[in-house]
Amino acid sequence: MEDGNFRIRDARPEDCAAIMKMIVELAVFENSEDQVENTTEGLQKDIFEPGSIVSCLVAEYKRPEVETFEVIGYSVFFYTYSTWKGKVVYMEDLYIMKEFRGRGYGRIMMRRVAEIGLEKGCQRMQWAVLGWNKPAINMYKTINSIDLTVTEDWHMYTMFKPQLLTFVTNS
Amino acid sequence: MEDGNFRIRDARPEDCAAIMKMIVELAVFENSEDQVENTTEGLQKDIFEPGSIVSCLVAEYKRPEVETFEVIGYSVFFYTYSTWKGKVVYMEDLYIMKEFRGRGYGRIMMRRVAEIGLEKGCQRMQWAVLGWNKPAINMYKTINSIDLTVTEDWHMYTMFKPQLLTFVTNS
Repeated sequence: MEDGNFRIRDARPEDCAAIMKMIVELAVFENSEDQVENTTEGLQKDIFEPGSIVSCLVAEYKRPEVETFEVIGYSVFFYTYSTWKGKVVYMEDLYIMKEFRGRGYGRIMMRRVAEIGLEKGCQRMQWAVLGWNKPAINMYKTINSIDLTVTEDWHMYTMFKPQLLTFVTNS
Repeated sequence: MEDGNFRIRDARPEDCAAIMKMIVELAVFENSEDQVENTTEGLQKDIFEPGSIVSCLVAEYKRPEVETFEVIGYSVFFYTYSTWKGKVVYMEDLYIMKEFRGRGYGRIMMRRVAEIGLEKGCQRMQWAVLGWNKPAINMYKTINSIDLTVTEDWHMYTMFKPQLLTFVTNS
């Protein structure tokens, strides 16, 4: 997808250092930097190993004064399943670097993920957002998505490895 | 896994009618019966087709007066990905029929999903629960899981196919 100086393409192994840097930037924005344990090597393996479940797009921008495009955003997504609806595309991350926000690039990228999901036969798209992230939420409102936490009181639960090990071992 | 009259095993194609019946029962419990569009045939294809991303366990119980086990619960799960942590096991459904609740069978089944996730190298386990489902939430507290909606204000968002088609086509 090209739109003048902006384009979206599939990530390549050599993008992983730039993507990992943006993953950390997004975690900082979400006040969760301390939760990042992944590495460039780990990410590269997880996206590109045979049988990988992880898909990744990058957004690129070409400044007027240069010839080459630079990576300015990314989206990580994969396929999940709803026992009610069938196949689901889950958008794990959507990120555009601060300098390039407010131009609709995030929306274009999200639309591309939706498009790929539909091509793969998905019946729904899901993602998560922090309740205070109003710019993102305002965009999600314009596309008629539903906040299931507000409308149906769905809560997201998690357990990390130490608690999982305790659960499996001691109970 | 066997525990007297209770056991857990991988689902088989011929279990899908019983599983689909329980999927509807769970949707009724969650006041979402109108959202179920799946069928026994669809479910069977999604779980057992080559390259399927969907895993399914069934719980079985043998009544003292009979020789055979009957299916009394199920869990559907699959693998997702955290850009912060790596591989994740996502428990989509966990269900035990009403007659058999309160005996710890749900917990045993969830522990089995956790165990399989750890065997597959997962760094975390995730799931969703309705905020009013106190029996489930009380159990989740005993295993030291975290309600990310309460602790970090994470909201679950979704878009269904008609809205996805509008998004992709019109914007």
